[in-house]
Amino acid sequence: MSSTTNDNLARASRRRFLQGSTAAVGGAVLGAGTSAAADADNLPPNIPEWMKAPGEPMGSQPYGTPSPFGKNVVKNISPNLKQYISASGRTPLQELDGIITPNGLFYERHHGGVPTIDPAQHRLMLHGLVERPLVFTMDDLRRFPSESHIYFLECSGNPVYTKPYGKTASDLVGLLSCAEWTGVSLKLVLQEAGLKPEAKWVVAEGADAAALTRSIPIEKCLDDAMLVYSQNGERLRPQQGYPVRLLLPGFEGNMNVKWLRRLHVTAEPIYSREETSKYTDLMPDGSAREFSFYMEAKSIITRPSGGQRLTTKGFQEITGIAWSGHGKIARVEVSVDGGKSWQDAQLQEPVLTRALTRFRLPWRWDGQPAVIQSRAIDETGYVQPTLAELLAVRGENHFYHNNAIWPWRIAADGEVTNAQA
Amino acid sequence: MSSTTNDNLARASRRRFLQGSTAAVGGAVLGAGTSAAADADNLPPNIPEWMKAPGEPMGSQPYGTPSPFGKNVVKNISPNLKQYISASGRTPLQELDGIITPNGLFYERHHGGVPTIDPAQHRLMLHGLVERPLVFTMDDLRRFPSESHIYFLECSGNPVYTKPYGKTASDLVGLLSCAEWTGVSLKLVLQEAGLKPEAKWVVAEGADAAALTRSIPIEKCLDDAMLVYSQNGERLRPQQGYPVRLLLPGFEGNMNVKWLRRLHVTAEPIYSREETSKYTDLMPDGSAREFSFYMEAKSIITRPSGGQRLTTKGFQEITGIAWSGHGKIARVEVSVDGGKSWQDAQLQEPVLTRALTRFRLPWRWDGQPAVIQSRAIDETGYVQPTLAELLAVRGENHFYHNNAIWPWRIAADGEVTNAQA
Repeated sequence: MSSTTNDNLARASRRRFLQGSTAAVGGAVLGAGTSAAADADNLPPNIPEWMKAPGEPMGSQPYGTPSPFGKNVVKNISPNLKQYISASGRTPLQELDGIITPNGLFYERHHGGVPTIDPAQHRLMLHGLVERPLVFTMDDLRRFPSESHIYFLECSGNPVYTKPYGKTASDLVGLLSCAEWTGVSLKLVLQEAGLKPEAKWVVAEGADAAALTRSIPIEKCLDDAMLVYSQNGERLRPQQGYPVRLLLPGFEGNMNVKWLRRLHVTAEPIYSREETSKYTDLMPDGSAREFSFYMEAKSIITRPSGGQRLTTKGFQEITGIAWSGHGKIARVEVSVDGGKSWQDAQLQEPVLTRALTRFRLPWRWDGQPAVIQSRAIDETGYVQPTLAELLAVRGENHFYHNNAIWPWRIAADGEVTNAQA
Repeated sequence: MSSTTNDNLARASRRRFLQGSTAAVGGAVLGAGTSAAADADNLPPNIPEWMKAPGEPMGSQPYGTPSPFGKNVVKNISPNLKQYISASGRTPLQELDGIITPNGLFYERHHGGVPTIDPAQHRLMLHGLVERPLVFTMDDLRRFPSESHIYFLECSGNPVYTKPYGKTASDLVGLLSCAEWTGVSLKLVLQEAGLKPEAKWVVAEGADAAALTRSIPIEKCLDDAMLVYSQNGERLRPQQGYPVRLLLPGFEGNMNVKWLRRLHVTAEPIYSREETSKYTDLMPDGSAREFSFYMEAKSIITRPSGGQRLTTKGFQEITGIAWSGHGKIARVEVSVDGGKSWQDAQLQEPVLTRALTRFRLPWRWDGQPAVIQSRAIDETGYVQPTLAELLAVRGENHFYHNNAIWPWRIAADGEVTNAQA
């Protein structure tokens, strides 16, 4: 936090963030005016049980896990999901802070289950309109120059346009996560094979039972596309494409082909199932919106958000995340009056291209009902639209690419619900 | 990777990174001159077993875990550790990429085991030279304005000066990790209580069985110090101080008190066990070096590194990590000739203050024995010293704060070993 930000916050709160608290913050403010002032010689509470005996020994967790008190923070998986048809597990965004999604909570979306791949047996073939067809082992891919970047990844149906929209931030846009990815520039790998002049597309195929296949324009492949083998430092999880996946920063999730086994360089797209029957949209004029690669600018308030409850009047921090497939977030605006007026939120530095950006706004809740919402503006000047604006353009049959502003309703008792459900 | 870097790499390699390969890269280069050119219609190998049946269903891992093929990538825990005396678990740095350490592999160092704390029962007391003594619940702390930063954390004995130094990068400097931390500015919390003019130190106490206690200068507390509750998005792990820890960017690990239960504002340091008997050093003149807060600039090559083996001549990427408690890394130099000459490595952007910085250098190994090493220069101009230079200044009784350059020896057969063991 910059000192300017600190100063603004200090002014906003007159340096007493908990001052407006009611009894709900318990004994927190023990200064003048309360009879429960802390006795400096007696810690309240008394020495807790966990200080009276040695704790868990070293080595009980060679690979660590969260606290047993956080065991409810897991992926948000529908009990009614259609296994192998529309299987997805959402990140619990409203439980998370910052911009990095821990690997254990990274969202999942599979079309044929999660293959268990032996990396020593895995091969990646590069063929088609190239000078030298190549087959790579994982060791081969590790020998290339590497690079690391923090990028978000988002499913194109996050959320879909069909109701019900869900209750929590995770229900709505939990098919979204962000990680530090390490791998090889796809451009370097294509250069190793040598592209023929007529090469215009690269068809990527996964080694899952669905053999998920997507056509990628050559311009993206020669820009920031990567072959990724590590995520947040360690090797990819099986759910994320272990041992290697395609990473197309800013493009819809399904194109970032997991368990990557084949790159076929072609002159035309292959018109696979996932770019004809699925991941296209019927427009009002009867045409199909296809190859809708980019995830547009979007944001959501994660705290306070649906399913949570404000327990006291006074200072509240409004915080959330914003992102754009087109580059950096330039600004996030927040409204606390149902969209009548908007204020600039603070953006957590560093703001990175095609990564989540955490935003924050100090706010004093007066205990009255309120509707809060955020809207993102990216570096291209694009402004996140309302749901009504999107529906007016894309019609009632649209399914994917819903990047609407999402308002939360705060009731007088502090309960937060989806204002658009 | 910037296009300039790409261009440099392309020139360095003449666009064929695997060209110098011997048989060890297998069938990777299948272009002109080999008889095993890939048949574009026949994928080698044939369709693998894992494509022939649906994979693991969604929901089998509500909180994900690594691939079973990566089960050897765990914390590096000595089988002979003295439980509750010098218990530590090291990050397997040579297995990791990028700068983020996944929470499951974050290093640990405990003095009384890992307490299992109920966050609803936990309290943090702030008392001493303040206007208003305060006791905070975790909910109280969550109501303050939050901030997120990526910072490294390192034990001051990483490694100690006493032999044996170990074989791998993890053995040597694995008491080092890096994460995105979220929490509250300690300055804001101190302002809430109101500091008295004579407040010069804050004594922090942990709620573990060791009640680990350290004195922190007020200048640091009013600068970038944080009370942290989240790490890489999710709540702190128990091993990292759940539900709240102190975070003093750039200061030695033990001062970043875990399971934080008390902040006592004082005029003088408390001279606790951990700042008198431990975490001090006997200098050659008989004086004690105490309150040695800052971790100095340091770097290490993680690949290739001790315990690994180069399997082929030709292109190799040398990569590693650099960090400084005093701010940003300005430059990392790499020598591949035993320290006779040095070249600038590329630094992965963004370079963040008091975070790990990943560096990389393209290199062609000629198959001859070599000694490789890196040295970090931080933004203050400080240059990472050799072990001999450190010993000359600090003497033979020094134990903590060894930030020496560490060379790796590469044998003609490709085996990599500690050149200073």
